[in-house]
Amino acid sequence: MSGSSLGPGAEFDRIRAILAALGNRAGELGDDCVIVPDGPGSLVASTDTSAEGVHFRLDWISLEEAGYRSAASALSDLAAAGATVTGLLAALAAPRKASGEQLAQFMKGVGDAVGAAGGLVLGGDLTAADAWSATITVLGRARRPLRRRGARAGDGLWVTGRLGGARAAVVSWLAGAEPESEAHAAFARPSPRIAAGVWLAEQGATAMIDLSDGLAGDAGHLAAASDVGLEIDLAKLPLHPSVPGPDRALFAAGGGEDYELLFTMPDSFSEQSVAEVPLARIGVVREGTGVQLLRDGKAVGLPSSYNHFA
Amino acid sequence: MSGSSLGPGAEFDRIRAILAALGNRAGELGDDCVIVPDGPGSLVASTDTSAEGVHFRLDWISLEEAGYRSAASALSDLAAAGATVTGLLAALAAPRKASGEQLAQFMKGVGDAVGAAGGLVLGGDLTAADAWSATITVLGRARRPLRRRGARAGDGLWVTGRLGGARAAVVSWLAGAEPESEAHAAFARPSPRIAAGVWLAEQGATAMIDLSDGLAGDAGHLAAASDVGLEIDLAKLPLHPSVPGPDRALFAAGGGEDYELLFTMPDSFSEQSVAEVPLARIGVVREGTGVQLLRDGKAVGLPSSYNHFA
Repeated sequence: MSGSSLGPGAEFDRIRAILAALGNRAGELGDDCVIVPDGPGSLVASTDTSAEGVHFRLDWISLEEAGYRSAASALSDLAAAGATVTGLLAALAAPRKASGEQLAQFMKGVGDAVGAAGGLVLGGDLTAADAWSATITVLGRARRPLRRRGARAGDGLWVTGRLGGARAAVVSWLAGAEPESEAHAAFARPSPRIAAGVWLAEQGATAMIDLSDGLAGDAGHLAAASDVGLEIDLAKLPLHPSVPGPDRALFAAGGGEDYELLFTMPDSFSEQSVAEVPLARIGVVREGTGVQLLRDGKAVGLPSSYNHFA
Repeated sequence: MSGSSLGPGAEFDRIRAILAALGNRAGELGDDCVIVPDGPGSLVASTDTSAEGVHFRLDWISLEEAGYRSAASALSDLAAAGATVTGLLAALAAPRKASGEQLAQFMKGVGDAVGAAGGLVLGGDLTAADAWSATITVLGRARRPLRRRGARAGDGLWVTGRLGGARAAVVSWLAGAEPESEAHAAFARPSPRIAAGVWLAEQGATAMIDLSDGLAGDAGHLAAASDVGLEIDLAKLPLHPSVPGPDRALFAAGGGEDYELLFTMPDSFSEQSVAEVPLARIGVVREGTGVQLLRDGKAVGLPSSYNHFA
């Protein structure tokens, strides 16, 4: 952890508790800077804040799950670039009354997420705040970093995994019910698609983005960056088993925070899975602009996407 | 800025305002990840949170100064490693009612600080919160990264610049007075000693740390990491002109957040400045442990250091 917000005494006790929880997921911490391991390809980086009351609620998920989710959502940006994971720096803000054990629980989740993705906790910071939040900066390497731009008319539009699980969990919690365990896991412990992202980059993916705002919203980002139009066939969407009716496909298309990958491939691509992650062709890239959701060939209205800041 | 916390509409208006304020200090933003420019030596990184009410108060300094200070304090960790500045990622948390103009003011300060240090705003994130805070992750490169450890018995103990200015400002504000303009600037717009840090690394500095917690506290970190004792002669401390009496040296030794460099050099080193920054030999490295503040050869009590989390 960086020394610049940390004094002696009780602060170091908190850090010792965190280091114990991280175990072999911690890099060599304790200096002003960390030396980032070198590797092939380009270094890519992204930073993301997950905040209590905005991105998660602690009456919905545990501190360990909040840590896992905070790290996984940031690591998902590396997946979208087709990058491997070097590690992350975690700036944790916690209430003054938080115990060392609570800080350790949060950071255990962070460490488990980055460990599962093949990286380390390289450094961090600890600050007092009114609520829990974590700003996670991820560092990785990509031989051919993928962007949102690059999709070409005629490419197929694809998605990894199954959609709508995180939204199903949120809808349950908002209704006062505990979601099904698979929906709870989709929200609390999303899987950054690192191995799939690397493989898809090698296979010639032309553009990629991770689904944080939701399929409809993120498809719009990809379309705008690539200066193309996207047609999505709602009947082709791979649905998470917890997605409720009556219109399951539209529910999934409007759900955010699945952290699956949306990507475009040359028309000839036809693989159905990678590393046990299912792949589904859900549409096509057209000349033009914007995103059309189609049912039986007819356009249907776009569900609105998440907007945390509003 | 990263897309993962940003939806369409008003959010993009805010980001456009920020990009306009950053001007040519912004890298190529707008994708999930930034590609970090390559360079010689090792990549070094650090992350630091600056929060309203903990690290700054907006009745003391402007939003632009808060942004400058947040970035400068993080960049100071690169200086302490003897690194040049590649750039930074800025995760900004702002109240929901913050205007695009206010976000732009904060980020203009961030951009000015990293621009003055020779780098770019490479990426960022924007989240709603109850108060302002910024988590700044800095990336730089060092041919021979300096650490807190490495000081050897017999080395000289040195410091850049003048100490106590930031504390003088805080003491004035807490007393309800506006500080002298030089003290205000020391707190609001500290100068990360990037060029000095690079040069000192080349000159054979054996250990280095930046003064964020205060001389007494940070000297303790360097001593512990290097497994040595440090003797500091209070009469040798270079004092900021705004430091008040009666005991000016002890006031400066207990002041935090000057963001000067504390470093150890072979005994033969004798330069008095680098790049217009004064250098002062303030003590010596001994075998042993801990930090002794000496006046006329006699030990005096250590002032307590900052502890934001307490």
